[in-house]
Amino acid sequence: MISPFGRAALALDLLPLGVCKWDLAALLESPGELETASQERLDQLLSASAAARGKQLSLADRDTALEKADREIDELTTLGGSLVTTFDGPETYPGRLLECYRPPLFLQILGDASVLLRDSIAIVGSRKPTPEGVRAASDLAGQLAAAGLVVVSGLAYGIDKAAHVGCLDARGQTIAVLGSSIDDIYPSIHGPIARTIVASGGGAVISEFHLHTQPTVYTFPQRNRVISGLSLGVLVVEAAKESGSLLTANFALEQNREVFAIPGSIYAPQHVGTNALIKSGAKLVQSVHDILEELTGYKAAVTPDACQSAALSLHEQSIIGCIQTGCTSVDLLCDRLAWPAPQVLSVLTSLELRGLLVRRGPDSFAIVQSR
Amino acid sequence: MISPFGRAALALDLLPLGVCKWDLAALLESPGELETASQERLDQLLSASAAARGKQLSLADRDTALEKADREIDELTTLGGSLVTTFDGPETYPGRLLECYRPPLFLQILGDASVLLRDSIAIVGSRKPTPEGVRAASDLAGQLAAAGLVVVSGLAYGIDKAAHVGCLDARGQTIAVLGSSIDDIYPSIHGPIARTIVASGGGAVISEFHLHTQPTVYTFPQRNRVISGLSLGVLVVEAAKESGSLLTANFALEQNREVFAIPGSIYAPQHVGTNALIKSGAKLVQSVHDILEELTGYKAAVTPDACQSAALSLHEQSIIGCIQTGCTSVDLLCDRLAWPAPQVLSVLTSLELRGLLVRRGPDSFAIVQSR
Repeated sequence: MISPFGRAALALDLLPLGVCKWDLAALLESPGELETASQERLDQLLSASAAARGKQLSLADRDTALEKADREIDELTTLGGSLVTTFDGPETYPGRLLECYRPPLFLQILGDASVLLRDSIAIVGSRKPTPEGVRAASDLAGQLAAAGLVVVSGLAYGIDKAAHVGCLDARGQTIAVLGSSIDDIYPSIHGPIARTIVASGGGAVISEFHLHTQPTVYTFPQRNRVISGLSLGVLVVEAAKESGSLLTANFALEQNREVFAIPGSIYAPQHVGTNALIKSGAKLVQSVHDILEELTGYKAAVTPDACQSAALSLHEQSIIGCIQTGCTSVDLLCDRLAWPAPQVLSVLTSLELRGLLVRRGPDSFAIVQSR
Repeated sequence: MISPFGRAALALDLLPLGVCKWDLAALLESPGELETASQERLDQLLSASAAARGKQLSLADRDTALEKADREIDELTTLGGSLVTTFDGPETYPGRLLECYRPPLFLQILGDASVLLRDSIAIVGSRKPTPEGVRAASDLAGQLAAAGLVVVSGLAYGIDKAAHVGCLDARGQTIAVLGSSIDDIYPSIHGPIARTIVASGGGAVISEFHLHTQPTVYTFPQRNRVISGLSLGVLVVEAAKESGSLLTANFALEQNREVFAIPGSIYAPQHVGTNALIKSGAKLVQSVHDILEELTGYKAAVTPDACQSAALSLHEQSIIGCIQTGCTSVDLLCDRLAWPAPQVLSVLTSLELRGLLVRRGPDSFAIVQSR
């Protein structure tokens, strides 16, 4: 589907206005006004923007942009793509991204455009991950998908690929946000993944760039802002010291998103960035539960770790019963249970190690109330 | 050196009083009073302690304890050991431990007793660590020793051993706190390490237990409380889910000590406990700097990471100069520098990745003030 405001949004973005395009978008009485405004009205609009002071916009510039927009819409239609714009509002443009500072005026989409309206979480990380990083990205993507979340990533080598594939394998939906245009999948070796996403109902491949935009060193950081902007939170799986994934995490913080990171060896360069993120406040993730407990309304579809159930042995039950009735020293417990001291001590230590009992002092205990 | 209050402290600890021994220690007019008190005075002392209600203490009990204490002091002297007691105060008894709840009434020491008065940090962890955990314990012990700190640990297999040996290798001083008495090194295979500590001026082997005390499942947790109590902070290197090292960390929190932990793979059982500690607030440690910056007055003796120096290229200097004079958009930078846009964008991204520049929006930048 092509937004009814697609022509205006594409043309607005093509005008030589730089960041003033957002001012102009806000000043228009309706998006269609751009297509019909007189020179006088264009001048009036520009003069109303402090940032546009000194900029000129002729009717010829405007008409050239509209023609380019028309050709782009034709091409996009041929590709089977969709186009949503900020003018459409949150009914088709993703609502969380819309609330960000200067959201892309349009998004071009291959695949299921409605996936942009579902709750999502981003998984990003190193292009040169460890095998364990690949495993973690894939495992967690599948588990998050099973919990009902869309997985957003950047279709790059390494962690991004593992996240998309892990999500698809779990029959989840995923969004690949490109640093190029949707007619130029980069890296091209990931074309088959992109086609699987699009063909299988597995989500969407999207871009904020016009058709025929080549990826550059600048489009990737810009794209990272969309990855975090779309998502409830960003999980960084592995990231070296100076890494694009850390930029995504910074965008996420600016956008008030949760930032999650997976810890790893202090000797592996792939973990330097993620460990530093945790040190500066990102939530450490040991399992999918650590992510889901921060997001309202989602629960893991995986079976809880068997070790976490606190089934008590008969001996442990006896000790807990005694402590609950006031026997809170080793001496008293030995008397009450008529057990030898080493047995009492052994069971106490076991309960303490399991977090079911705390010691108030060398010889005084209390039960930890279950959560 | 045997404390002048050693006889009283040992005897007090040998009386069948349980936790009331601390009450009695506090009620005595002088430690020596225990040795000479009448039955009437003993009864009076016991009745002054709420916890001792119902307890009996005969002159015969007291005299038996004193005799045992005398024999123990003779043995300790033969071993070349020292004895310090809470009655000595912080001139010989370690001050931080003295301030803890119910500190051991005495400590028995082989080696340099004065090491107990130096600032120390505990390094603890799994008895079955990964090779990397052993490396981290050894590296950090050496670096902490080089920064002027004493390294405290428990002489156990694995992380403890690596911490003691790493400290000794760096010519530092270390304290091994036993879960047995000092005449019964456990595990016996670590006897040579204990003897090296004692013989080389490398620190001390200490115990809160009377001579001939066997280690039990209960003495280790009790000993862990002394490890954290002695130290400014506790570094947990690796710890499984239910691990004695986590108890030490809990003691450390109760005692208002810093807790540090090293992150690691979410797939390795040795890291489950340490990652969980970080999740619940322990400081993540990537290098010795993370520990030292929490402790006043200590600086790393190691060379800082070369990557941390922020030497700027000429191109980077040009960009920063322009931004500082108000050029804060890509367009303006291209104009001012007469560089092609891709070059400007590439240098901007490099500066951003190095944390020297932040983006306020897609086309607006600001320099990060150096710390």
